Amino acid sequence: MGDAAHTTRLEIGDVPVGLDPDAGSAGIVRTKRVTFDEPGRTLELEGGGRLWPVTIAYETYGTLNEARDNAVMVFHALSGDAHVAGRHSANERRAGWWDMLIGPGKALDTDKYFVVCANVIGGCGGSTGPSSIDPASGRPYGTDFPMITIHDMVEAHLLLLDHLGIEKLLAAVGGSMGGMQVLDLAVSHPERVHLAVPMATAARQPTQAIAFNEVGRQAIMADPDWRGGHYYGGKPPIKGLAVARMIGHITYLSDEAMEEKFGRRLQDIHDYTFTFNPDFEVESYLHHQGLAFTNRFDANTYLYITRALDYFDLSRRQGSLVSAFRDVRARFLVLSFSSDWLHPPYQLKEIVGALRATHKHVSYYEVTTRFGHDAFLLERDKMEGVISAFLTSGARSYARSV
Amino acid sequence: MGDAAHTTRLEIGDVPVGLDPDAGSAGIVRTKRVTFDEPGRTLELEGGGRLWPVTIAYETYGTLNEARDNAVMVFHALSGDAHVAGRHSANERRAGWWDMLIGPGKALDTDKYFVVCANVIGGCGGSTGPSSIDPASGRPYGTDFPMITIHDMVEAHLLLLDHLGIEKLLAAVGGSMGGMQVLDLAVSHPERVHLAVPMATAARQPTQAIAFNEVGRQAIMADPDWRGGHYYGGKPPIKGLAVARMIGHITYLSDEAMEEKFGRRLQDIHDYTFTFNPDFEVESYLHHQGLAFTNRFDANTYLYITRALDYFDLSRRQGSLVSAFRDVRARFLVLSFSSDWLHPPYQLKEIVGALRATHKHVSYYEVTTRFGHDAFLLERDKMEGVISAFLTSGARSYARSV
Repeated sequence: MGDAAHTTRLEIGDVPVGLDPDAGSAGIVRTKRVTFDEPGRTLELEGGGRLWPVTIAYETYGTLNEARDNAVMVFHALSGDAHVAGRHSANERRAGWWDMLIGPGKALDTDKYFVVCANVIGGCGGSTGPSSIDPASGRPYGTDFPMITIHDMVEAHLLLLDHLGIEKLLAAVGGSMGGMQVLDLAVSHPERVHLAVPMATAARQPTQAIAFNEVGRQAIMADPDWRGGHYYGGKPPIKGLAVARMIGHITYLSDEAMEEKFGRRLQDIHDYTFTFNPDFEVESYLHHQGLAFTNRFDANTYLYITRALDYFDLSRRQGSLVSAFRDVRARFLVLSFSSDWLHPPYQLKEIVGALRATHKHVSYYEVTTRFGHDAFLLERDKMEGVISAFLTSGARSYARSV
Repeated sequence: MGDAAHTTRLEIGDVPVGLDPDAGSAGIVRTKRVTFDEPGRTLELEGGGRLWPVTIAYETYGTLNEARDNAVMVFHALSGDAHVAGRHSANERRAGWWDMLIGPGKALDTDKYFVVCANVIGGCGGSTGPSSIDPASGRPYGTDFPMITIHDMVEAHLLLLDHLGIEKLLAAVGGSMGGMQVLDLAVSHPERVHLAVPMATAARQPTQAIAFNEVGRQAIMADPDWRGGHYYGGKPPIKGLAVARMIGHITYLSDEAMEEKFGRRLQDIHDYTFTFNPDFEVESYLHHQGLAFTNRFDANTYLYITRALDYFDLSRRQGSLVSAFRDVRARFLVLSFSSDWLHPPYQLKEIVGALRATHKHVSYYEVTTRFGHDAFLLERDKMEGVISAFLTSGARSYARSV
């Protein structure tokens, strides 16, 4: 399998040719971990379960000022982790997943802000998840891990913020699942966030996204190597996970972007092979993405996190989105992406409409792009100024609000 | 698993409440088979292979007139078969898959036209396919079946038309993969078709559709029960095939139709179960569709037919669609469906544009619908008049053209 199809994609954190890789870099960072294990405490989960102890893996960039009013938390999406910017070593090939926006002089300017990013619970990037040791059994949780929700992820993040001494975030920023966490935080803890920047997301998981996620889960659970979720120490269900990831990748790109990037181009061959081999570049790309994912991601985490996404519905408890937003105090910047068909602009406009109906402070901006859902990870130039200006003016209003 | 989610969908051939099930019915029909096995002959395939003998399963409705100028062939899509109208017995629950448009007085009026529908080669509805006996080994072909293309399907259909004594079709009609066969026939055998009605299709398989198909194939081939395609006599790869079918179903519905049909409604429960069970109706619907499909469809056929779809590219040989259409003699009615995101209207307009560039007779009609790709199987009222009028006026020009 050649590389042509893979290098045509601008991967997150790749340094575009001609740019100084160190310009604006957050520098060398490391992932830290904190474990909350005080006896007698626990994390009560929305689904009725409990989780304790809770380990959170996180990274920070910049410095928390004395007033502790310059903290910006970035919330990651399904396949993300705490490594959002900078590099773990000088020769790490790729920087963190949103490096393009985080660093000295960038939109999330680490000379001004103290940027925090943490792996969600249920994840596989160092925070407590299905692959962690279950204290009850002394072996990995597997599917004994309790069901978690977007709200539970937020509650766990708050343990970290307390630990870091951050009472109120200057800003909560996130795309896709990260955006759902931003929304949940602003609704469930209005006093803990001043600015909210949800992007490429929705106030409730749309039906079509539930459908795609369910197919991905079925692919994983159909893999005999899944073994009911207790595969640790043995062969993981890589075939099922690869299929799930391939489905996901299709939903992250637009039809148009796929036509442009791959079209019907063949992969290192001059004519159809008339076999089931990956003749087309797009097939090779998907195989590559599927396989690469299995090297870094845990199949059970995929199950738990997609389920959390599907359960997300801000209006569920209070009957309507307008009611859910009633006590919100944060100022919002809502970003949508024109060719995103996983979370099309109308889903972001729903959020904006409900915020306006409750007279909240909200700005809306639609980025014109061909990159589909992935655009929030790629369109630096189109997002930088908008986010940067919102944070700068928000920092002033934060000062007044305290 | 309850039935609520399944009955909300108008299934093809279901009789809407209040309608006389026999009104306009093509009546009781049976699937016939013809086997072409003359020694010394063979079907040379585009991919270099050969197939012989060739059995074609087909149904006919109405009567071929003496002039043999009233034959209308309907070409089926991926999961279709020869049973396009009427019922196999009085108590068959569902009529044929396009019964809504075929019968006395309907758009494809069986009082006037002799309607033919045949299962494609590679299929599993009675025509020679991977589950047929390979004369070379005496056991089912499995993946020893030669690769077939849309063009090969058309060549096999012509064996049937020759057998039936039909030199020139009055009309070739088909949606999705059926539309590709219509296009191929009009291009490769201009003298054999007077009217062409491709709908919900494209002149070349789009990239995104290749991507979805490849994921479906990977799901099937990842199923250990697939056993390299030689599973006949044992357990078939139903889990993989179900996943493939679920993916397909999502692409057949629009985002909007999914929201309307299922939204976030729960399936026979009052609250989330916080498990991986199908809490949502849309999940239950997909499970049902996936499972039902495995009872009637062969996994290898899914592989071969999706590959044929992906290889389809009318412009491949002649460099451009305009060149490909140069010798076309058929008059076209091209139908698109507004919410179809598998084959959006722009793909149909591409066909129309190329036909117009070569000064062919072409009409274009976009059906406004919320049903997505499936609309061509559902929107009877919006299609009936257009198709009926096109066939009626075409029958007059056919008479003049002979």
